[in-house]
Amino acid sequence: MRVAVVGLGLIGGSFALEMKRLKNQVIGLDKNPKHKEQALNLGIVDEIADDLPSIPDLELIVLATPVKAIKEELPGILDEIQSDQMVIDLGSTKMQITEMVSDHPKRPHYLACHPMAGTEFSGPEAAVKNLFRDRFMVICEEEKTNKNIASQLEQLFLSMGMELVYYNPAAHDKHAAYVSHISHITSFALANTVLKKEENEEDIFKLAAGGFTSTVRLAKSNAETWAEIFLENRLQVLDVLTEHINQLEQFRKAIEEKNEIVLSEMMNSANQIRKIV
Amino acid sequence: MRVAVVGLGLIGGSFALEMKRLKNQVIGLDKNPKHKEQALNLGIVDEIADDLPSIPDLELIVLATPVKAIKEELPGILDEIQSDQMVIDLGSTKMQITEMVSDHPKRPHYLACHPMAGTEFSGPEAAVKNLFRDRFMVICEEEKTNKNIASQLEQLFLSMGMELVYYNPAAHDKHAAYVSHISHITSFALANTVLKKEENEEDIFKLAAGGFTSTVRLAKSNAETWAEIFLENRLQVLDVLTEHINQLEQFRKAIEEKNEIVLSEMMNSANQIRKIV
Repeated sequence: MRVAVVGLGLIGGSFALEMKRLKNQVIGLDKNPKHKEQALNLGIVDEIADDLPSIPDLELIVLATPVKAIKEELPGILDEIQSDQMVIDLGSTKMQITEMVSDHPKRPHYLACHPMAGTEFSGPEAAVKNLFRDRFMVICEEEKTNKNIASQLEQLFLSMGMELVYYNPAAHDKHAAYVSHISHITSFALANTVLKKEENEEDIFKLAAGGFTSTVRLAKSNAETWAEIFLENRLQVLDVLTEHINQLEQFRKAIEEKNEIVLSEMMNSANQIRKIV
Repeated sequence: MRVAVVGLGLIGGSFALEMKRLKNQVIGLDKNPKHKEQALNLGIVDEIADDLPSIPDLELIVLATPVKAIKEELPGILDEIQSDQMVIDLGSTKMQITEMVSDHPKRPHYLACHPMAGTEFSGPEAAVKNLFRDRFMVICEEEKTNKNIASQLEQLFLSMGMELVYYNPAAHDKHAAYVSHISHITSFALANTVLKKEENEEDIFKLAAGGFTSTVRLAKSNAETWAEIFLENRLQVLDVLTEHINQLEQFRKAIEEKNEIVLSEMMNSANQIRKIV
């Protein structure tokens, strides 16, 4: 099948690599000329193109740009779509995108997706094989997609080693804020805390072994990408961030009051996460 | 050399494994009978003992218990020490321990140490080979230790693959709070946040791939161990925790005000951590 991947960063590039592994012909698009060149040189795509209408015989269009660009492009793509074409997006939030095309006559050609996979790196050079293996692909509003198209796309995701999970867009965005987005904020804020308190980078490096490295890993993530995600998912993110600050205030109070029992209780409660991850 | 390791958890057990690899005879002590049995069965120690005075021909005593127990035991051990014996402690904070024995006539037999190595696991079963390889061993107040003893112990740490770094006790405790201790608090608080917001553990599991797993890893750490560390190092921990809450409040404010520029600036600043870890 001939596939266009729009946005050749970590997610789009890794998706393109999987499509190539599965013997599809992959045409890459990216508004950044350097990304197109890198994607071609790294073998992430077979060809590059400047715009979708110039590509003949496309069967699948994959939108892997930030959500803002997806919202700008998806309605126009659906306007022009041919009867045998399919569109998916891999955007990080789902409510605004799905609402925007909810009543579009070509809505059945489109499936709203979000692969729960990622690293702290970005750009075509961050694309890796097997990024999606054993990860969950969240699918939203499958009932609005043509049954044959949905089924064909699900088989594709399964071929990439993914597990399928179904949420409505509001539930997706809520759970993404509660688990993924808050993790990024804590990590960014931890990096800023330590960079502010430590005058000497050598001291951070030497004392980092005891867990700092893994806790702060996500603070290396792309700033623009995440600024946009936090604002797209603003109310849910504020909700969980307020709770997180509240939890930290409880730690501060217990330490101030030298309350070892309460401190231990809070951490025994946190230990319950062992059962899950 | 014949070595006694007091406290057979993650750190003490891993230290015992290294001592065995280096062809020393290791005698293990632990107030928890199950830990002694596990350490013997797992081959972490050669022998177990009930108390130090019962062990003949000891050359090195390694205190790897929590700091509270080190403070209780170290002065009495120094009281009884023989002229050819050495003592180290591997405790997580250094000010209180070093102050306590500062004027002890046998102070030169003792070296205050803290290996910057650890995992989220605890107990003898958490002990692993090579835990200390390429990690930093912090040494405090080396000038108060007999030169020959300090030199012999430094060679031992180098044989374990460690790099040596020297801090005074106050600087150690400050930097440990700023880098290691705050990382643990953020992780514990993140776990509690997500466990509180998410009613269904399945939702956490499915959406955890995007970084939550690494950010929350330290929340699996032993509650009693860390309650004690936070209170031992209370003022430094409160100082950095207050700054961390302040950083999170800045994120909340920028998200509330939809200020994408400030948000991006904060995360670009956090990205500087890439240079260090």
